[in-house]
Amino acid sequence: MNENTFAVLGDVCYSISPDELITAQNAYVVCDGGKCAGVFEKLPERYSDIPVIDMSGKLLTPGFVDLHLHAPQYSYRGTGMDLELLEWLESITFPEEAGYADTEYAIRAYRIFTDDLKRSPTTRACVFATIHADATLELMRMLDECGMAAYVGKVNMDRNSPDNYRETTRGSLEETEKWLKSCEQAGFLAEDSRVRPIITPRFVPSCTDELMCGLGKLAASHGLAVQSHLSENISEVEWVSELAPDAAGYADAYDRFGLFGGDVKTVMAHCIYLRDDEMELMRQRGVFAAHSPQSNMNLRSGIAPMRKLLERGIKCGLASDLAGGSSINMFKAVTDAIQVSKLYWRLIDDTKAPLSFRESFYLATKGGGEFFTKTGSFEEGYEFDLLAIDDSMAATPLKFGIVERLERTMYLGHAGFIKAKFVAGRRII
Amino acid sequence: MNENTFAVLGDVCYSISPDELITAQNAYVVCDGGKCAGVFEKLPERYSDIPVIDMSGKLLTPGFVDLHLHAPQYSYRGTGMDLELLEWLESITFPEEAGYADTEYAIRAYRIFTDDLKRSPTTRACVFATIHADATLELMRMLDECGMAAYVGKVNMDRNSPDNYRETTRGSLEETEKWLKSCEQAGFLAEDSRVRPIITPRFVPSCTDELMCGLGKLAASHGLAVQSHLSENISEVEWVSELAPDAAGYADAYDRFGLFGGDVKTVMAHCIYLRDDEMELMRQRGVFAAHSPQSNMNLRSGIAPMRKLLERGIKCGLASDLAGGSSINMFKAVTDAIQVSKLYWRLIDDTKAPLSFRESFYLATKGGGEFFTKTGSFEEGYEFDLLAIDDSMAATPLKFGIVERLERTMYLGHAGFIKAKFVAGRRII
Repeated sequence: MNENTFAVLGDVCYSISPDELITAQNAYVVCDGGKCAGVFEKLPERYSDIPVIDMSGKLLTPGFVDLHLHAPQYSYRGTGMDLELLEWLESITFPEEAGYADTEYAIRAYRIFTDDLKRSPTTRACVFATIHADATLELMRMLDECGMAAYVGKVNMDRNSPDNYRETTRGSLEETEKWLKSCEQAGFLAEDSRVRPIITPRFVPSCTDELMCGLGKLAASHGLAVQSHLSENISEVEWVSELAPDAAGYADAYDRFGLFGGDVKTVMAHCIYLRDDEMELMRQRGVFAAHSPQSNMNLRSGIAPMRKLLERGIKCGLASDLAGGSSINMFKAVTDAIQVSKLYWRLIDDTKAPLSFRESFYLATKGGGEFFTKTGSFEEGYEFDLLAIDDSMAATPLKFGIVERLERTMYLGHAGFIKAKFVAGRRII
Repeated sequence: MNENTFAVLGDVCYSISPDELITAQNAYVVCDGGKCAGVFEKLPERYSDIPVIDMSGKLLTPGFVDLHLHAPQYSYRGTGMDLELLEWLESITFPEEAGYADTEYAIRAYRIFTDDLKRSPTTRACVFATIHADATLELMRMLDECGMAAYVGKVNMDRNSPDNYRETTRGSLEETEKWLKSCEQAGFLAEDSRVRPIITPRFVPSCTDELMCGLGKLAASHGLAVQSHLSENISEVEWVSELAPDAAGYADAYDRFGLFGGDVKTVMAHCIYLRDDEMELMRQRGVFAAHSPQSNMNLRSGIAPMRKLLERGIKCGLASDLAGGSSINMFKAVTDAIQVSKLYWRLIDDTKAPLSFRESFYLATKGGGEFFTKTGSFEEGYEFDLLAIDDSMAATPLKFGIVERLERTMYLGHAGFIKAKFVAGRRII
């Protein structure tokens, strides 16, 4: 038995597939060396002497996975929401992100973000930083210190942005290599590091072919994952087709540089306006779609065809997309995804059934969790990421079963409901 | 100068029209006898000696007006959300509401609701209770005790509902008269009562013509306001046309019984699938539309054409529609209304501009406030309904102006942000 072995006792609820929610009243979730050893009504003989953390009456769920967010945008979350994507980037996003050249400012701002993320339902996240290597490294250190698991990317961009927030092609690649070297020194490339670097071309409009080519080589040579944006907004998709006339489409504009799945683990945010052949490419390459419903409403982007993506076998998860999305609370991403899928069904295609509550919960846990390998469930061998949730904070005279309690937690819950939080077997709240 | 005269000092923000947001940094909002006497940078001579409640650094906004909610549904908010309207009514709503025949249960459940409403941004609400006169009167007493202003309706329904939750036509009218008599005895018909009865036919499918006719007469004879539902869901609209073949439409099914504005102040929830002539009738009769975006997503109803309703000069406000909507937080109604209006623009009609933040804030305060006469603004003579909001609870390294602070409060805020709350000049938090 591993040293870090214990059990948490409570009312257990987790997904094993989009349609299968497993529940167990007053049961033990066992952590054996940072991994989940299973859920038990009664502790098995071999675990009979382990410490038990008593969370009786609390809901125990896997940690939530936020597949896409921008840490530097957290400072202005909930403002400028009357703007559409491209004007919002120009007038708010780029000016603020440029300020992270000042590492002291970055630390101050990131401290607020990491404190809130630590308290939130999220245990793992895919994070965009800014173009600045130093500030990005600080963010990684802060996430590591507060016990979170994350892929964090220094952003690359060498065109179509203001002078004070644009790199040269060569400068961008050099800064990325410098950052990766610092990551190595800081231990973020180690096998067991919970915080890891990820190659992060902002999106096609921000990156020349030469930069994309260089980033593709870096991803391959270092065995790194990739994150970016794909088909978020109609104007953006049109712009990409002008910027990359030789590419077969938006997806291909990444794929031709080795930045679209296959050997390179990849997550793409949004995926609203994909053609059929692009969806097929995503499936073949195992590219993850990070569905960000709140952001897609705020920036007037539209509604991603989640049922279609799921039917085609594309790997999907949910995302806050801070600060296109305003809320860091992934419970809310679960209900936002359900709500917009109902509008998709009502307004766009009534052959595409809305996401059920079970499906959306699955996407926010095991679905997105697959990007971090075995994460987001309590099946044996999964990372021990666990939340203990006090759903009695939403008072009611009724007695609900575990499934209803979980559903109402998604609709009504927030950070204040979380009474304990574990990431890879380590308690951080 | 009236006895109840004081000022609150803080950063003031209120609407005078959908496009005009007035702000004043570190200013005084003066209450003179329960009414707002205006906003002043410096206290005028005549008020120089009044008590000042120092809320420096807090945002001061008018109270929020929730134009439509179901108090007995609060117990199961956030559950059963995978169902559509009519199946949700059958399988969840009616069985739970039937339980309010037990007045003790009703008091226990309503206590949770009124406690949460008191803490919420809402100062005034239009409330559906159940068919039970006794439980409804208790709810009115509890709202009154906690200092809220509200129209509260005993629900009427004599068809298309389960045996244990359906009245006879005569029984329904008699129970309503009994309830009104109790209201009179309890002082709820007095001129200055903040809690008042409102005639509440559930919706056309639940009420026979005979019942509607009787309710129309009661509203007229007692000078009471009316609330109901209108054009929420496509199946419901079709059902109404079968149930009321002689009516010119859903609106007319109320209008022909004197339950649709004119001399009878009326608010109708939802208003999603109105024909042009029905909108015109609403405008002529001064009927209020209670827009409930969250509920309309949850129950797969659709998106109300708010820009169209506003362009036509129809009086509009926002609503939580508990428990079709799960959240009692009217800040969220403001952002939900903006978000769905963006999807309306993107998916239904791109000639209808999304609601701006200013417009949606207006709808949640002064827009809906008009149903309570002069409410929802800090103009002179308005009811002194005020919130002091600590927006610093959403931490940021940036310094924002008042308008941005208000916007981020709508996106990020909740009951915990509210440090003081006044209704008609009386402090209740």
